[in-house]
Amino acid sequence: MQVYLDNNATTMVDPLVVEVMLPFFSEIYGNPNSLHKIGTASHPAISKAIDQVYTALNAADADDIVFTSCATESNNWVLQSVFIDHVLNSDKNHIVTTEVEHPSILSTCKFLEEQGVKVTYLPVNGQGVVEAETVKAFITDKTALVSVMWASNETGMINPIAEIGEICKEKGVLFHSDAVQAVGKIPVDLQSVHVDFVSMSAHKFHGPKGVGALYIKNSQALSPLMHGGEHMGGRRSGTLNVPGIVGMGKAIELATTNIEETSAKIRVKRDRLEDAILELSDTFVVGDRDNRTPNTILISIRGVEGEGMLWDLNNGQIGASTGSACASEDLEANTVMLAIGADNELAHTGIRLSLSRFTTDSEVDYTITHFKDAVARLRAISSSFAIQKPTEGGEVQECELHHH
Amino acid sequence: MQVYLDNNATTMVDPLVVEVMLPFFSEIYGNPNSLHKIGTASHPAISKAIDQVYTALNAADADDIVFTSCATESNNWVLQSVFIDHVLNSDKNHIVTTEVEHPSILSTCKFLEEQGVKVTYLPVNGQGVVEAETVKAFITDKTALVSVMWASNETGMINPIAEIGEICKEKGVLFHSDAVQAVGKIPVDLQSVHVDFVSMSAHKFHGPKGVGALYIKNSQALSPLMHGGEHMGGRRSGTLNVPGIVGMGKAIELATTNIEETSAKIRVKRDRLEDAILELSDTFVVGDRDNRTPNTILISIRGVEGEGMLWDLNNGQIGASTGSACASEDLEANTVMLAIGADNELAHTGIRLSLSRFTTDSEVDYTITHFKDAVARLRAISSSFAIQKPTEGGEVQECELHHH
Repeated sequence: MQVYLDNNATTMVDPLVVEVMLPFFSEIYGNPNSLHKIGTASHPAISKAIDQVYTALNAADADDIVFTSCATESNNWVLQSVFIDHVLNSDKNHIVTTEVEHPSILSTCKFLEEQGVKVTYLPVNGQGVVEAETVKAFITDKTALVSVMWASNETGMINPIAEIGEICKEKGVLFHSDAVQAVGKIPVDLQSVHVDFVSMSAHKFHGPKGVGALYIKNSQALSPLMHGGEHMGGRRSGTLNVPGIVGMGKAIELATTNIEETSAKIRVKRDRLEDAILELSDTFVVGDRDNRTPNTILISIRGVEGEGMLWDLNNGQIGASTGSACASEDLEANTVMLAIGADNELAHTGIRLSLSRFTTDSEVDYTITHFKDAVARLRAISSSFAIQKPTEGGEVQECELHHH
Repeated sequence: MQVYLDNNATTMVDPLVVEVMLPFFSEIYGNPNSLHKIGTASHPAISKAIDQVYTALNAADADDIVFTSCATESNNWVLQSVFIDHVLNSDKNHIVTTEVEHPSILSTCKFLEEQGVKVTYLPVNGQGVVEAETVKAFITDKTALVSVMWASNETGMINPIAEIGEICKEKGVLFHSDAVQAVGKIPVDLQSVHVDFVSMSAHKFHGPKGVGALYIKNSQALSPLMHGGEHMGGRRSGTLNVPGIVGMGKAIELATTNIEETSAKIRVKRDRLEDAILELSDTFVVGDRDNRTPNTILISIRGVEGEGMLWDLNNGQIGASTGSACASEDLEANTVMLAIGADNELAHTGIRLSLSRFTTDSEVDYTITHFKDAVARLRAISSSFAIQKPTEGGEVQECELHHH
């Protein structure tokens, strides 16, 4: 049995999505910007995809949704263009973000710091959550932008986006959220919260890789990241990726129709898996379940290196992660766990299991069995766990993580 | 019969390309950056795609080829990052380009002018070609970059890239070429010419939309346009578009294996179509055939508005263009024809026919018949042609275009 529990890294494209994409490779293949029928033949499908995204996000007609190549592009676009539009030639020079953002936010902030921008990286609380009051405390007259992820890729913890949005609105500061881990997993209603810019990526909700979007409230001005022709009203140049756009539309529709029901089903499986693993001694999961995306578990197993665990799971045909796949080639401590306050040793033990609507009960059963065996195997050869053994069965005193 | 003669705008994805892409949507769908088998399962296919691109371009091992979302991204990347790396905090402040570049070059140059860069837009000669001596004449001590397209999207005219490369090398100036209309149409050998950066896009050579590449000579430094994780050695962040990359590899292999033979076959059809249209009075084609991509005709029919012609062809199920699809929503004069020196009226009569290896002889026959009928229909109702009628059968005196 092969079990894929790395859905926060990327997802299987739903076969129904592939099906709607297929005609746009070799049949309806024209450039939508062309004036002839072979080009315009794709217009109804593109319009439908746009409608599907608007509906899924409950965006208002006055808002804009622009397709990009991925959320990394959307994130770079917002940060770099807010710098051009609202920092250069202005008296603002400050961005507020968090320590636990995706590398596409953190690296772009580092780049902007080199250009003279001041960036505040907010900490998260012991739950892995960015508190709205913390955001409020760090906004100054110089702040041009607040960028806080909607939900964490590593922990699944959901930030108080509605509250932060109200604070930004009140302070007259632009607010961006990287919602790549929220869209398709939890309801995202862009008329009920105030967010200026929202990034998303299709491949996180069973759509194709290579296509994402940026939501722009009230179609407000934002300089392009990619200059060029007049595609997408001049906002994002480059020939439209028609199959990708059509696939993203279908994928977001499938992911958000009856999202509460689908999420509840995923959560039942997730909770069962989580409960079973927590039966093991000295295991810790980050964050309250109720404030977490329903598919995610970030679990620490005292004495078991994350990389070793990954290797053992992999031998059992189970795909998991030690954290963000975007940085996984480094064998480093889990940065989110460090940010939460875990000690360095514990931060090396993080394993992320992320389910999807395609995860089955028998896959969960199989994973529980293999996972428990793996922990036994690895603890048997663990030097650090041997040292810890006196605490077995009890609490590890200084752990600041949530202990079940 | 439907005839697609707009292959410079975009192409049909070769069904053989779709075939190799398909497994990477719902079977081998992992994130290549993941450490488990479901992620790493795509590595051999990605390596193969990289090899296919290297082979197709005869790139050296020391060179780098980075996948992007399209040539527009590649073009923006080079121009914006050369600005960051070689203009900011340096005494250089000048870019040399041409009047006939793609909007993704021209718009980015306009953006850089707003940031203080001086840009020289070189004219083309009566053949639509940028002369190497012109480039040489405008390079100064302040020049950071020369950017000249390899072949024109509108005319198909091929620029003297080898000569310009030598000049840039001699002067110590970086050289970029947008080769989106060259790769897959004519041999591009990056060990026989000196170019620092080369942009390309898969959908121009029967690959998928949404994927392109940037060639970087000697893997030289170039700041990223998109900051983020460690994808592609930190050069271009964002989850790899695996199906797109695999498709691009296959497409470039198919397009460049036996390229001389394939091109010769396309050229025979193109020349037959061109000869037939030139039998009509007062028709003009831009540029010598021997120095033109073998699939392209930019033709002017005195007295026939390009838009009207497009409409009539479209009624006959023939897809053509008045020029770049990237700007085709504007009913403007053909900018390349204006640059060549055509009068404004003639520049409104340009029709671009661009063939592919899938164009058949019967499609050419059908197009010849329909095209001639269309010209007769439109000239019959043309007010401007009525005024021109005294010249019918003879030369139009002031036309600076190449007249066959």
